[in-house]
Amino acid sequence: MSATVSPLAPKSYPDMPVLRGVRMATAAAGIKYKNRTDVLLMVFDEPAAVAGVFTRSKCPSAPVDFCRANLPTGRARAVVVNSGNANAFTGVKGKAATDLTARSASDAVGCGMDEVYLASTGVIGEPLDATKFAGVLGDMHGSATGDFWLEAAKAIMTTDTYPKVATRTAEIGGVTVTINGIAKGAGMIAPDMATMLSFVATDADIAPAALQALLSEGVGPSFNSVTVDSDTSTSDTLLLFATGKAAADGQVKVESADDPQLSGFRAALNDLLKDLALQVVRDGEGARKMVEVTVTGAESDAAAKRIALSIANSPLVKTAVAGEDANWGRVVMAVGKSGEMADRDRLAIWFGDVRVAVNGERDPDYSEEATTAVMEKQDIVIRADIGLGHGTATVWTCDLTKEYVAINGDYRS
Amino acid sequence: MSATVSPLAPKSYPDMPVLRGVRMATAAAGIKYKNRTDVLLMVFDEPAAVAGVFTRSKCPSAPVDFCRANLPTGRARAVVVNSGNANAFTGVKGKAATDLTARSASDAVGCGMDEVYLASTGVIGEPLDATKFAGVLGDMHGSATGDFWLEAAKAIMTTDTYPKVATRTAEIGGVTVTINGIAKGAGMIAPDMATMLSFVATDADIAPAALQALLSEGVGPSFNSVTVDSDTSTSDTLLLFATGKAAADGQVKVESADDPQLSGFRAALNDLLKDLALQVVRDGEGARKMVEVTVTGAESDAAAKRIALSIANSPLVKTAVAGEDANWGRVVMAVGKSGEMADRDRLAIWFGDVRVAVNGERDPDYSEEATTAVMEKQDIVIRADIGLGHGTATVWTCDLTKEYVAINGDYRS
Repeated sequence: MSATVSPLAPKSYPDMPVLRGVRMATAAAGIKYKNRTDVLLMVFDEPAAVAGVFTRSKCPSAPVDFCRANLPTGRARAVVVNSGNANAFTGVKGKAATDLTARSASDAVGCGMDEVYLASTGVIGEPLDATKFAGVLGDMHGSATGDFWLEAAKAIMTTDTYPKVATRTAEIGGVTVTINGIAKGAGMIAPDMATMLSFVATDADIAPAALQALLSEGVGPSFNSVTVDSDTSTSDTLLLFATGKAAADGQVKVESADDPQLSGFRAALNDLLKDLALQVVRDGEGARKMVEVTVTGAESDAAAKRIALSIANSPLVKTAVAGEDANWGRVVMAVGKSGEMADRDRLAIWFGDVRVAVNGERDPDYSEEATTAVMEKQDIVIRADIGLGHGTATVWTCDLTKEYVAINGDYRS
Repeated sequence: MSATVSPLAPKSYPDMPVLRGVRMATAAAGIKYKNRTDVLLMVFDEPAAVAGVFTRSKCPSAPVDFCRANLPTGRARAVVVNSGNANAFTGVKGKAATDLTARSASDAVGCGMDEVYLASTGVIGEPLDATKFAGVLGDMHGSATGDFWLEAAKAIMTTDTYPKVATRTAEIGGVTVTINGIAKGAGMIAPDMATMLSFVATDADIAPAALQALLSEGVGPSFNSVTVDSDTSTSDTLLLFATGKAAADGQVKVESADDPQLSGFRAALNDLLKDLALQVVRDGEGARKMVEVTVTGAESDAAAKRIALSIANSPLVKTAVAGEDANWGRVVMAVGKSGEMADRDRLAIWFGDVRVAVNGERDPDYSEEATTAVMEKQDIVIRADIGLGHGTATVWTCDLTKEYVAINGDYRS
């Protein structure tokens, strides 16, 4: 955890309501440091439906492997999250550690090992001593409480400077349901998945297949549209749980993601996912500015997204933003290097509302003063219109500062 | 130009011999600053054969367009290079500027406009006032001299901290020929092309088509294998000229790149290109350490190169190197995010001669002390064996330091 809170942190946190069917507790298991909260247990006293999205890394962590293997059952009773050690690239020891952790959790909670989900963040390559969980999970299960979301968000922080929480409500068939979510992530953030852990739960009664469809669709314009440093973690995990407790209020279980009754829920879920994803970017390591990059007029939406990510991941664009330098030439560079179709002479670029380039050259009305005023803001919007088609995409990133280098040049010690 | 010379700079410069058929001069044309050398003229009093390789940016600069259009003639009489303004993304004004510059050069040198080559670096998007060249090129043509290579290299520097020169000799059919080259580049450096300008000349007598084949082949393991920041310039230009003056010593003109007489020349050229490319990396903006990344055991050479570039472009790997942190977990991360086939449990990683990971986990003999000793060196070698096939590749990069952020957060001012 960093000493200084990101200047982009939210000014206040929402009150996180209790969500029926979920209890949580944290503990200090001494994974890496003594007397530091480093384990979170989420308990569903009755089985919850579960959906998940994970890193696309070819070298995923052992917990990611473990979750992927359990996901087809669609049932969850417990989630164990630890910081301090990612249990990634730990070979057969890594699998032994996930098995032991799941065994400890299943003993503590009284469920099957295939109803346990695991997530770990921290250093890659260090063996995780999973025996440490056995001593704490039983007590945690006893003391777990529903009014614990902000504490849970704090417990999973690593280089984060603030906890990330969000809550929404929606109606399904006239019954009000709640969605709560927490996330962590600050570096090693790039799409597919945006590197982080996030756990979202709802009391809605939704079948696992429908839940998975909602989640897979929802990550596209949210977690898969944010990047801090283009580096993809081995551990990215986003899990969505539905406890089904709203059935007590008369909500009829939804079996299909295509059910029109889900429209409000889908919108609320997507909004919550975007909220959490942007909180992750706003806590990007060393970030001083938030950057929204929108590309329009590309050949396709996919092309627009690749161009937008080329801009958002460019060290030269990000350092220019850090320096409050309206260096739109670097945006041209990033469009040009994306590999997507672009025609220099149709390209137009805006910083905020100020059009700086059009028809392949500097805007005739270009004002250095106006663009500099945009760059001095905390939230910067960059837009590039490619002028070739109707593809659009928006992604979010932060600036690249000396603090990012400082944080990551000395992370392990 | 930076106040401090890169710690990775060569300790001495080679004596650059005069190369028959090439004369050079520099001048201060006031492109961006007054009284600063900012124009280089290279003159071939008799037409030289020419070959070129350029940026793959979809938004290339006007000079790149101009050179590409002239290249099919295969003949060069003059090269005009300026710093201070890239003449990129300057629309119709950009084309007018290249035409005017070429007109001034053809008047000064007495050649066709299609025998002129142009290259510009500096800020993107600012109109270039090409009328400034007309006043200086005539005098430059008069005063141009052959003993000027180091001065020429100095004249094309922008954020470079030292001039980049290299020279080699080779024999073709028993006749000794010389190859001289200069380069500039420090940031916005990524393959295809590694962002920079480089001008190489030989007195060998080689036909344009053969010259082009040699150059296209030679850039793969040299300029197209270096990266400073993954950002691809709009202006990358590498030109190779053959004056043919060695014909006076009896060298018979070589018409085909397949001619076995070229084997020594090819080796010398490739060695010179690699020398210049590595000098560019060693002057990477803010660089304190040079990093060689070798990938072996990949599915193919192309896959190996993509994995190597994923490692070399990772901000987290590069900041770890800056912090002298043997954080090999980030190398695992970079292998995993490359998108290429990889099997966690077959992966092995070395820092220098120290194997840090094998069989999907930390090396049983891992020594933090030994790896830290490697990281404290100025030149770091990282090797990853994927364990799947026979594909290999080597690329070069530098560390990512606070100085990179400082240089690029305030470049335009």
